[in-house]
Amino acid sequence: MTSVLEHQLIARLVAGLPRSPLQLNGLHESDAELVALPGSDVVLAVTMDALAEELATGLYGDPWLIGWMLVMVNASDLAAVGAEPLGILLCESLPPDAAPDWVDALQRGIAEAAITTGLAVLGGDTNGSPALHLAATAIGLVRGPPALTRRGCRPGDLLYASAPLGAGGAYACDRLLRPTTHGAGFPFRPVARIAEGRLLRGRAGACMDTSDGAIATLDELMTRNGVGFRLDTPLEDWTDARAAAVAGAAGLPAWTLHAGPHGEFELLFTVPPNREAELLRAATGIGWVPVRLGRAVPEPGLTFSLDGVRQPVDARRLRNLFTECGGDPQRYITSLLSE
Amino acid sequence: MTSVLEHQLIARLVAGLPRSPLQLNGLHESDAELVALPGSDVVLAVTMDALAEELATGLYGDPWLIGWMLVMVNASDLAAVGAEPLGILLCESLPPDAAPDWVDALQRGIAEAAITTGLAVLGGDTNGSPALHLAATAIGLVRGPPALTRRGCRPGDLLYASAPLGAGGAYACDRLLRPTTHGAGFPFRPVARIAEGRLLRGRAGACMDTSDGAIATLDELMTRNGVGFRLDTPLEDWTDARAAAVAGAAGLPAWTLHAGPHGEFELLFTVPPNREAELLRAATGIGWVPVRLGRAVPEPGLTFSLDGVRQPVDARRLRNLFTECGGDPQRYITSLLSE
Repeated sequence: MTSVLEHQLIARLVAGLPRSPLQLNGLHESDAELVALPGSDVVLAVTMDALAEELATGLYGDPWLIGWMLVMVNASDLAAVGAEPLGILLCESLPPDAAPDWVDALQRGIAEAAITTGLAVLGGDTNGSPALHLAATAIGLVRGPPALTRRGCRPGDLLYASAPLGAGGAYACDRLLRPTTHGAGFPFRPVARIAEGRLLRGRAGACMDTSDGAIATLDELMTRNGVGFRLDTPLEDWTDARAAAVAGAAGLPAWTLHAGPHGEFELLFTVPPNREAELLRAATGIGWVPVRLGRAVPEPGLTFSLDGVRQPVDARRLRNLFTECGGDPQRYITSLLSE
Repeated sequence: MTSVLEHQLIARLVAGLPRSPLQLNGLHESDAELVALPGSDVVLAVTMDALAEELATGLYGDPWLIGWMLVMVNASDLAAVGAEPLGILLCESLPPDAAPDWVDALQRGIAEAAITTGLAVLGGDTNGSPALHLAATAIGLVRGPPALTRRGCRPGDLLYASAPLGAGGAYACDRLLRPTTHGAGFPFRPVARIAEGRLLRGRAGACMDTSDGAIATLDELMTRNGVGFRLDTPLEDWTDARAAAVAGAAGLPAWTLHAGPHGEFELLFTVPPNREAELLRAATGIGWVPVRLGRAVPEPGLTFSLDGVRQPVDARRLRNLFTECGGDPQRYITSLLSE
């Protein structure tokens, strides 16, 4: 089987690094690292994510959105394990010539996202740097039912998303492929699904956020669980309508919204059939309506329901495509459409 | 009083960011952030530090040393609060053309430092990036006596260093001012004082690591505690002899080793006179000999004993000088010597 290109690099980097006997998850098994705290029944959830490609490609340009996303990409990892947010550390390397207004807007985005997700800012590091570089570490607590991980899905389990998908792809499409609008045409302000993740803990099986796009997420969940996914729900029913309109305006079929490496920070999760009703009842209690996509099947591979026809989707190939195209958006789209 | 230039930027960045009622330390009050874990008597110590100026100026060039220091700068913050190391997260943004041998050496440095300090590698983030950028977050636990902070020093308390100081300055001097040797002449491989920090917890008063150089550290400890420091011990007795030789060879007086912004990652700490003997006994038990520098005095300001004469040192001015010189080593040295 073709390997995930990003995982090849990670495998090389981690070889030889010491691991902890207190860590509950293996490599790639959960969105946040899970560490049992000695002498307590608390599990620490920690995650560290930088904005790198998103800045280098110009995907994020507005300073407020950059700040917002710096917090959200990390908060979303906490959401995907069902952790209770504790705090965040920020590492900001700012060019010496960064305009004060620009930095203020960045900090406002950080502050608003931190308040929205319940993440106190604990500290961090500030440096002068020729190029802007931003990273953060979010810390959460897991008490009570075990943390959600990417494992725990069996054939027959139902596959859900926390909301219709595609906003991440639509934003990237609008921002990178139609440069005259510069993303102004598609509002993108994802909110990490903290409350939903906590509700899913103890109820759902596998869970992962769609930060890398829906198809990459589905590929990872299939790999971790040795299952396939059959998405019986018609594509248009689980695709965000505004996102589909952006794809349509760019002349792209709606499925391409889910293929790219920039996702919408929703949660994809599975639930055994006998626990579906209780989960949906609990969701109603917090005013949340998850979207059913399909189910896990024993046969490997992903199928979509497109125009009433079941279509196989080479999830691994689509997942690697952006990397294979050297991260060039135009080249990527051309390759994608020739699939 | 002149303010610390770096603190001005930080004050602007943190205005408006939400803080946590669980956080035990205020801004700049400790080397690592201290967070009480709800429902337990465990305090979490977390710190996030990047290598930024160290890479931009070429201070660190050898990939093994870069990896080693990425871990050590963070481990040293845990040492300074007396925490027990739990784990570390790594954020590595690597240029796409980084040579495999270079990356392997970087990872070996990380692994050896992590093993040396007892920090398991929990996870992190890897990105492609035009410029190398490295950050890490270290996590430790504090159980039993309260964490060390930069506060807790009173006039009359004795001032100690964990070892003779100056290696950080000597390395920077050798590396940046005598480019023909490229640091090959001065071995620099600091080891975070984890065991020493744990021993100091419950015994010492204030504590801080010398990552920013001894004089900047003394300045911060004086500010946090509203005291001055009188360093009665002759400079040569608390200056690393090999470091002094490097300064001598470069034509620089030994005190300049302590003035620069690159320190040796030792600990500076204070102890009340009535607890000194017990602390030193405990230190002997782990084969450690702290170096006494002098004592805290009620009058503000720092004095050194130079050639048998007590000399005032403008610690705040020296601390800001490198920033005022725009981070240019040659310009900095010229300014420093004109002081």
